Amino acid sequence: MHTVSKERLEDKIAAFMKFGAAGQGGITRPVFSPAELEARAEFQRRCTELGLTVERDDLGNIYATKSGAEKLPRIAMGSHLDSVACGGNYDGTLGVLTALEVVDTLVKDNIATRHPVTVMVCTNEEGARFPPAMMSSGVLTGKFSKDAMLAVRDDSGVTFGEALRASGFLGEEKNRINPVDYLAYLELHIEQGPVLQDAGVSIGVVQGVVGMCNYTVTTRGQANHAGTTPMKKRRDALHAAALIICGLYEKLGRIDDNLVFTFGHIDCRPNIHTIIPEEVNFSLDARHQDPILVRRVVDALESLPAETAGCQVSCKEAWSRKTTTFDPELVAIVKKNADALGYSNRFIYSGPGHDAQYMQDLLPTTMIFVPSVNGMSHCEEEKTELDDCWKGANVLLNTVLDIDGRLA
Amino acid sequence: MHTVSKERLEDKIAAFMKFGAAGQGGITRPVFSPAELEARAEFQRRCTELGLTVERDDLGNIYATKSGAEKLPRIAMGSHLDSVACGGNYDGTLGVLTALEVVDTLVKDNIATRHPVTVMVCTNEEGARFPPAMMSSGVLTGKFSKDAMLAVRDDSGVTFGEALRASGFLGEEKNRINPVDYLAYLELHIEQGPVLQDAGVSIGVVQGVVGMCNYTVTTRGQANHAGTTPMKKRRDALHAAALIICGLYEKLGRIDDNLVFTFGHIDCRPNIHTIIPEEVNFSLDARHQDPILVRRVVDALESLPAETAGCQVSCKEAWSRKTTTFDPELVAIVKKNADALGYSNRFIYSGPGHDAQYMQDLLPTTMIFVPSVNGMSHCEEEKTELDDCWKGANVLLNTVLDIDGRLA
Repeated sequence: MHTVSKERLEDKIAAFMKFGAAGQGGITRPVFSPAELEARAEFQRRCTELGLTVERDDLGNIYATKSGAEKLPRIAMGSHLDSVACGGNYDGTLGVLTALEVVDTLVKDNIATRHPVTVMVCTNEEGARFPPAMMSSGVLTGKFSKDAMLAVRDDSGVTFGEALRASGFLGEEKNRINPVDYLAYLELHIEQGPVLQDAGVSIGVVQGVVGMCNYTVTTRGQANHAGTTPMKKRRDALHAAALIICGLYEKLGRIDDNLVFTFGHIDCRPNIHTIIPEEVNFSLDARHQDPILVRRVVDALESLPAETAGCQVSCKEAWSRKTTTFDPELVAIVKKNADALGYSNRFIYSGPGHDAQYMQDLLPTTMIFVPSVNGMSHCEEEKTELDDCWKGANVLLNTVLDIDGRLA
Repeated sequence: MHTVSKERLEDKIAAFMKFGAAGQGGITRPVFSPAELEARAEFQRRCTELGLTVERDDLGNIYATKSGAEKLPRIAMGSHLDSVACGGNYDGTLGVLTALEVVDTLVKDNIATRHPVTVMVCTNEEGARFPPAMMSSGVLTGKFSKDAMLAVRDDSGVTFGEALRASGFLGEEKNRINPVDYLAYLELHIEQGPVLQDAGVSIGVVQGVVGMCNYTVTTRGQANHAGTTPMKKRRDALHAAALIICGLYEKLGRIDDNLVFTFGHIDCRPNIHTIIPEEVNFSLDARHQDPILVRRVVDALESLPAETAGCQVSCKEAWSRKTTTFDPELVAIVKKNADALGYSNRFIYSGPGHDAQYMQDLLPTTMIFVPSVNGMSHCEEEKTELDDCWKGANVLLNTVLDIDGRLA
């Protein structure tokens, strides 16, 4: 079996963590920020040095291609270089750098492939500066309208379209990844959770991305003075919200051990310590690979009483996502290579969304997960041990080679 | 018994609701805003027209004085003209306008007093633009340092001192209200709660201002990805906060029917729907006239378990306020006049703070409450029926006359 260079991979990781270094070990690298543009430029420089052909599409996605021996569709691997504020060095970046290291290995070890092999950098996976997340893969696969995305503004009022044009990475629509010119898409990513570490395994063989629902629950009461309104006359929207959160925590907690749900966002109006809260909105995000169990969460929300603690209660779907199942043949190849390389591994579903889940609608796709130390992600402490990064890259390399040989 | 003119009072209320009209019947009139300066100018214009002497002190407080027959200390009445954002036309303003109407009546009805009678406009009672509330009465009574207050900035970076100088209302320190030159301070105010309306009475004979405590409770967990972290591994700060709020609601609710407590402010970090909350801070404001019961609230907070739902729990006093008891002789005169005028009335403690509570530390002080329709305040719907405003002004007039005759 072929393997990539651990030293080269280590150097790549060290080189890219400088772009947007946030001070506590991680990075702040929103899409098209100076830091992200530096990372993109360094990526292109390294690709050119390896003799790859660099192209860009109309969303700023970068495609760096090593030619193949035959005139065949490309095998693509990639991820993203943008990050959330004070995020880590591995989310997205590791997928780009392991893909680059795979091609580096093909070049340096003179491994010829029949198919061209492409390293792809997806624009704006995080959606941290310009929501939504997975913006460009969403446009590529028809989930989002391109015009609507170009008009999205960041906090300073700049549109995505303006930032894209100013970036210097605007290319042509004809360069978009597509099912005619591409054979498969592979994305290595950190797990962003503790499952692999807890199981003591190095490789997650990703079967799909779990479905989710995201709702906003609203409680509406009556603002009034904190010092004068007797308790019995109050309609306190925060009290109602706290009761509903506690109640749902209990109820949803009984559905299934693998169901995860999060009340991550809350806002309270007027949010003044001397005024009884008038309106509270909070989010509920729930995920499970089994759509029936996600549906039970929705049922629990829809059966909330219309009134709690004197407040009107309503809920509204913000969005939902069906479970994505990756290409079974590709999943089997990943599993086979992890086994053949002697790496401990297990099947896993992804909780977070990834560009790969949209790509699967376009062409055969799968993912490879590597463990996150203590399950931490979207924070500066985010880390994956170098050895695990290297093992993941080796699985990726051999999967590309298998696809090259078998799926032609 | 003398009475004021209901028509003149109605005209005054109608005239002043124009300054800062917010569109839904109420006003937005932060201190030294163009709208508040217009209201101050109109107040001064009307005072000058009545032949009063207008003075200002070094905090922009206005003193409009009708001279007395003898060389005696002044009897002061007043309140404030500033408002919260989208507040009502009665909070503060009614106290100024009824005081003005009392003097108007003394002038028009040729009622001579032995003591000079002063209408006072207090600067920045609300603290909405420049915190804290009751800023100038706090400085007058040594609660706050003047230098510190002059340095307080509004959201746009302007200091209170700069706004004060620019206002044209900066006067001299020697004009401050003080216990040598003043005999008493009276403040008529809307109740800002539903107690008087519910009791079906027109006059609240205010015995004092209830004590309060204000705490910030903090729950600290661990931020992590909403899609990947199994429920059993979570330390969710919002879950902990919701449990504590629900628990305290039950526990504090059993202390006493007259205890009021409010969780009015909450902030959650990072407050992103896909991330488990790391830290939540929420406020608890609790008020009761009996300090022992306020202490029981503090005890409940201090005995919170150090850990809830895997999160560290801590609490910190933001501030507290002792119960203020108004001058018993003045309280008795208010009661006597309400009875003598045939107005239904009851004793009451104020939940909200007022400049009068600080003034009581300087000189004999009391307040007169009139009912708030549906207990609403700090909102545009805030209203007191004209008849109740008029009755309150009549109690105020006769109380001034009694003080003039009895307490010399």
